[in-house]
Order: sequence, then structure tokens, then C-alpha cells
Amino acid sequence: MSVRKFADANVVEVKAGSKTTMQVLISSDEGPNFAMRRFEIQPGGGMPKHTNEVEHEQLVLSGRARITIGDEVYEVEKDNVVFIPAGVPHSYESIGDEPFAFICSVPNLPDKIEILD
Amino acid sequence: MSVRKFADANVVEVKAGSKTTMQVLISSDEGPNFAMRRFEIQPGGGMPKHTNEVEHEQLVLSGRARITIGDEVYEVEKDNVVFIPAGVPHSYESIGDEPFAFICSVPNLPDKIEILD
Repeated sequence: MSVRKFADANVVEVKAGSKTTMQVLISSDEGPNFAMRRFEIQPGGGMPKHTNEVEHEQLVLSGRARITIGDEVYEVEKDNVVFIPAGVPHSYESIGDEPFAFICSVPNLPDKIEILD
Repeated sequence: MSVRKFADANVVEVKAGSKTTMQVLISSDEGPNFAMRRFEIQPGGGMPKHTNEVEHEQLVLSGRARITIGDEVYEVEKDNVVFIPAGVPHSYESIGDEPFAFICSVPNLPDKIEILD
């Protein structure tokens, strides 16, 4: 199936976060080189500071968040592009009134999340 | 620079298409495994049937289009997820009143576009 709606993808709770869900839009089985996922963090929720072994390529779809990447703090919103290199500590805090939603693509490589907080 | 606005990325005309522009949001130099681009096709514009040597992982951001993937024809709109395997002929026709905009990520592998029409 080459075309689908993101709303039809399974919604999985992200245990490392709070009020955070994830949907696999294009899986690492379907995409030979990388996967596309959609995350949604409800207002007040977030992901604690952590590292991954793979990079993240992200586009913000809606809402606002305060994110840290390394030592930098950013406020991001719709249409912001975010690149998080492999191994760099990062965190998310959903702020504002609507869910913070973003696309996050990752390569088909081994990954391990390490919580730092 | 880890966070940017897509509107700040250079806009390049796509010569293989009509009324079609492309912005590199995360380049193959920055992303070690894949690149993220944003395409926009004005109403009435499109891309003729063609093949690429790499797969496309896409998310529709706005507008509507009639696309073909292999022998299938789809009408796609905001929030549709599109996977186009490497080597499969595909085309785009922007329909409706607003620009058809979508994210298209591709692996950092050699690619050649071949126009079939």
C-alpha cells in the first residue's frame, strides 16, 4: 500500500516520555534505508534529556515546544526543521495549548535510547 | 544550525517539472544517511512520469494532487503518507486551488531521474 493516512497508523505510547505517542508512518521494513515516524506530545508532556545512537531529521507539523539540543535551547513551532545528530543529548517540552506534533525520520541502524536526567 | 524555518531554505526550480520548486531542508551533507526536501507544485503544475533509483518517503503538507505510482492512481491531500519504492514510475499533477506541498526524504545514494513520458 503506497498511500495511506497518518491517522490510520497505530498509535503507541512512548514509555520514555510523558503524554507522548508515536506512530510509524513508513516502517524500517518497508523503507529500505530509513523510517518515518510521527510523534505527538500533549501540552505539559515531554521527553526527558536523552541520547540516541542515530540522527533525527524532523519537521514540526503543529503546536509548540521547548527543545534542547546539546547546550542550546530552542522554541520550535510549525514549519521548523530540526536536525539532531547521533549521540547529542536532546529533550522536548510541549508548551502552548495544542499538541506538539512532528515528523521524525531515522535511519535503519541499531539504536538505543539512554535517558540522562 | 540544528533548528531552522523551511521558509529560509533556498527555493530551486525543478526543471523536470512544471510550476514545481524544491527546497533542501536537511542536506545529504548534513544528514549522514538521508536528506529531507520540501517540494511545492502550483495548481496546474506537475511532474511527468519518471523513475528514480532511490525510494521516496513523503508526507503531504497542503494542497491536493493526483499521483500515479506504477499502475495505480491516487488523489492525495494533507496528512497522506506516500511511499514510492526505488525504480517505480511515478508522476504528480497538482489539482485544486492551493499549492501542493510535500516532504520527500531520500537516502544518500546515487540517483538518476529518467523521464518516461
